[in-house]
Amino acid sequence: MVASLRLPSLTSLLFPATTRYPAALRRTVCLRTRPASGFATAPSGTASPEVERLRSDRAVTPRSQDFNAWYLDVIASAELADYGPVRGTMVIRPYGYAIWEAIQEYLNVKFKETGHSNMYFPQFIPYSFIEKEASHVEGFSPELALVTVGGGKELEEKLVVRPTSETIVNHMFTQWIQSYRDLPLMINQWANVTRWEMRTKPFIRTLEFLWQEGHTAHATPEEAEKEAKQMIEIYTRFAFEQTAIPVIPGRKSKLETFAGADITYTIEAMMGDRKALQAGTSHNLGQNFSRAFGTQFADENGERQHVWQTSWAVSTRFVGGIIMTHGDDTGLMLPPKIAPIQVVIVPIWKKDSEKTEVLSAASSVKEVLQTAGVRVKLDDTEQRTPGWKFNFWEMKGIPLRIEIGPRDVSSNCVVVSRRDIPGKAGKVFGISMDPSTLVVYVKEKLDEIQSSLLEKAISFRDSNIVDVTSYDELKDAISSGKWARGPWSASDSDEQRVKEETGATIRCFPFEQTQGTKTCLMTGNPADEAAIFAKSY
Amino acid sequence: MVASLRLPSLTSLLFPATTRYPAALRRTVCLRTRPASGFATAPSGTASPEVERLRSDRAVTPRSQDFNAWYLDVIASAELADYGPVRGTMVIRPYGYAIWEAIQEYLNVKFKETGHSNMYFPQFIPYSFIEKEASHVEGFSPELALVTVGGGKELEEKLVVRPTSETIVNHMFTQWIQSYRDLPLMINQWANVTRWEMRTKPFIRTLEFLWQEGHTAHATPEEAEKEAKQMIEIYTRFAFEQTAIPVIPGRKSKLETFAGADITYTIEAMMGDRKALQAGTSHNLGQNFSRAFGTQFADENGERQHVWQTSWAVSTRFVGGIIMTHGDDTGLMLPPKIAPIQVVIVPIWKKDSEKTEVLSAASSVKEVLQTAGVRVKLDDTEQRTPGWKFNFWEMKGIPLRIEIGPRDVSSNCVVVSRRDIPGKAGKVFGISMDPSTLVVYVKEKLDEIQSSLLEKAISFRDSNIVDVTSYDELKDAISSGKWARGPWSASDSDEQRVKEETGATIRCFPFEQTQGTKTCLMTGNPADEAAIFAKSY
Repeated sequence: MVASLRLPSLTSLLFPATTRYPAALRRTVCLRTRPASGFATAPSGTASPEVERLRSDRAVTPRSQDFNAWYLDVIASAELADYGPVRGTMVIRPYGYAIWEAIQEYLNVKFKETGHSNMYFPQFIPYSFIEKEASHVEGFSPELALVTVGGGKELEEKLVVRPTSETIVNHMFTQWIQSYRDLPLMINQWANVTRWEMRTKPFIRTLEFLWQEGHTAHATPEEAEKEAKQMIEIYTRFAFEQTAIPVIPGRKSKLETFAGADITYTIEAMMGDRKALQAGTSHNLGQNFSRAFGTQFADENGERQHVWQTSWAVSTRFVGGIIMTHGDDTGLMLPPKIAPIQVVIVPIWKKDSEKTEVLSAASSVKEVLQTAGVRVKLDDTEQRTPGWKFNFWEMKGIPLRIEIGPRDVSSNCVVVSRRDIPGKAGKVFGISMDPSTLVVYVKEKLDEIQSSLLEKAISFRDSNIVDVTSYDELKDAISSGKWARGPWSASDSDEQRVKEETGATIRCFPFEQTQGTKTCLMTGNPADEAAIFAKSY
Repeated sequence: MVASLRLPSLTSLLFPATTRYPAALRRTVCLRTRPASGFATAPSGTASPEVERLRSDRAVTPRSQDFNAWYLDVIASAELADYGPVRGTMVIRPYGYAIWEAIQEYLNVKFKETGHSNMYFPQFIPYSFIEKEASHVEGFSPELALVTVGGGKELEEKLVVRPTSETIVNHMFTQWIQSYRDLPLMINQWANVTRWEMRTKPFIRTLEFLWQEGHTAHATPEEAEKEAKQMIEIYTRFAFEQTAIPVIPGRKSKLETFAGADITYTIEAMMGDRKALQAGTSHNLGQNFSRAFGTQFADENGERQHVWQTSWAVSTRFVGGIIMTHGDDTGLMLPPKIAPIQVVIVPIWKKDSEKTEVLSAASSVKEVLQTAGVRVKLDDTEQRTPGWKFNFWEMKGIPLRIEIGPRDVSSNCVVVSRRDIPGKAGKVFGISMDPSTLVVYVKEKLDEIQSSLLEKAISFRDSNIVDVTSYDELKDAISSGKWARGPWSASDSDEQRVKEETGATIRCFPFEQTQGTKTCLMTGNPADEAAIFAKSY
């Protein structure tokens, strides 16, 4: 396996990141200059001006210029999602949904490995259920969607479209749990949920979203606590290993705890604009719902006890987290492990006489990689120039690009470029003699990209967390757009004050804490733990 | 591989099918008599009377006695589903959901292989959308659930909770489709849908159910027709090959066509009570929705054309179809290919000294089968007698049971029984020397069961379809509980009359038709095709 570096690549020379769009311009440049390179040439079929015009609206605002505009542009241009007809709703398009499917595939296996079964609860919940747990109704009632008419008739009791399922789950658990032998009861469902949010943003906060919600019932508080911790640990590993997002796992403050939970564990992620995203939560519900619903079991002595419960969830919000963690001015950048397409192959030819051999070589490269389990796409459309394709697939965040031109075919090699290192490309030789050379190279590169994205995100995260010892330092950190980490043992009202004065909330008390005595940044009293404060989505 | 037959089994001798429940009685008999067999003995730990009492409510009404009561009993006892708190809603429990997951797994792959991408549309649809397609609103408006309050406020426009998504799909397609290059557009979603049904039945007809709905847009009517046919063909193969249900594919009559379709293709299945179940449909929508929503594309000549569309769906109703096709007096009977558990291992021991070696042998059998890809469960609980377990897992429909007792361990064999052939068991010898012997035997038996269930269902179906040539013959067939098949070219009002007078509807004009001239059974006029009439769910 031989890989020689070619630095910088034509693409980056011709189209520096900040000036890549609009597409129409780039195409002209590309057609005029690429032939000189000896391998990158005009395709035999070029796109009609009409098509190029249609596509020119794919322009992405540079991230460095306007993060929010960039985020919305990426979602539109990369065809991740679209707006639904009802305010605040979202249509998840195939490319965005494929990322969600990758999330589902991984977590679904982990849930089953840890003893959970999938099932499905109805989404219509009698309104009276929501009222049973005091803090739950307080937390959720402003966000409810209500069905009041069914089959042409006004309903006697209005129905809540589930915002979460603890209430209906407990209603059913009371019927399924009789004795300690029925415990633990550990289930999960993949479902849609509805929360009537006022300020919405695709993937991050929508009226309806997709999630999984796990619900468990245990005989002892220790078991419930262990389960709640286990699930946040699974989410943490998932975030690090699959999505390359270095989340910080920890415990929520009392004020930020889920409506109905004793303890909420969370994973907090730093987005590219340094705002925090709560990317997953796991709740120790104690006996709050079991007392409200009478979910009891006979213990080994035949005595009736209320079960101890947990619930935990990850949603399509995670897709937003992936976009906002790794994207750059050019567009999306996907970690290979969850990328729907890991490698795109762009065949390049000038004359019709070259087309057959180039396409044939491209097809066999595709075949080789596909057989080896790599998710690969061959973009052999003749309606686009290679330059257009390079930019398009970069914007779509494909981790690796393989170019094959006539010279590559005759010298029996391909050119491989990494999405995360602009302008750096390698050549792999001898692939027709030993296809495994390419497979090994590609898999190695994909692993490198995966690790590299994680390392980059870790160093970005760590360089943007400031350790603070006073409220003034906290305010400085927050106003400079960073996260503040400092010892905290002050009151709920102090926490509320920080929020009002700085816009930042306690994201979590991280599990990982430094040793030694600590002094509360606000009160000067002793503090057991440091908290992380940040503005958040 | 040696398999000796042991005929009849103890289970069937002791508990003839019609008298198997209640469990308490069976347990007594079992404990008293099983030791004499030399391999089936009392377990070291026996269940408390309390537990046996709790379980005795698993009694299943024999199918032959009351089909409907049997169906509901099976669903409850096998823990397939439960009733939700809102009338007509259903909780799908893990065992039932696992069957749905098997359906999803197979179809999801087929949809992707045929070029469809998964995505997700919001479930809230503006009421005005439903009104756009005339026959669609007529068909669905009586069944709608309406959200009228969101976030504490009365909504300006009430929202429909999707009963199906053609309208919102077309609303979005208008934004995504510009030119013929954007076609075909082929998507699918796995989702919940709501239809305010008055007469509900678990799995078969519930207020909310799970399904997949495919939606495609094409440039020509020929392509749309080909797609609609392709999808009903995929459903047909799925039904035959995976679920062993010999559905009859065909075309719906005009009266029974989907509200908004030009043509509806259907697969019709005969349940154990000889009622028909519409198990899946595929619609050629023509331009009905594209005209209502203005879904147009520029063709190769730059002219604007309305797209040609299809939609197709299979739902959790299929689970009900599997139950009602294969079950018997004892309970559920699952085709191996979609059975969540294909093999249950029941270890049997009398003395504590035997326990270790029996459990160890049972564990290695489990290991061997699991490694070979067989879905296997080892029921090693000490709270139940082997007799209880036999009956329980038979009721749950597990295709194969493996028993291992001390004598089996010493003679290096296991006893294998088929769920579908009561009283017939085989012995497999020499498994510790060559584990593949058992794997081959088990896989062969699973294949045999799969084929045998299909053959049985085919012969049941065919012996219950009567070819009729007159309306009197049709009435006789229907009143005897059978299906009637006869040439039909009569009017919609004649069809309506048949429904009113016999309770039967045209299920379909089967694709498979006999050659030769036909005479309409009702009018005596020439007829192109025969139709199938039956009472249905």
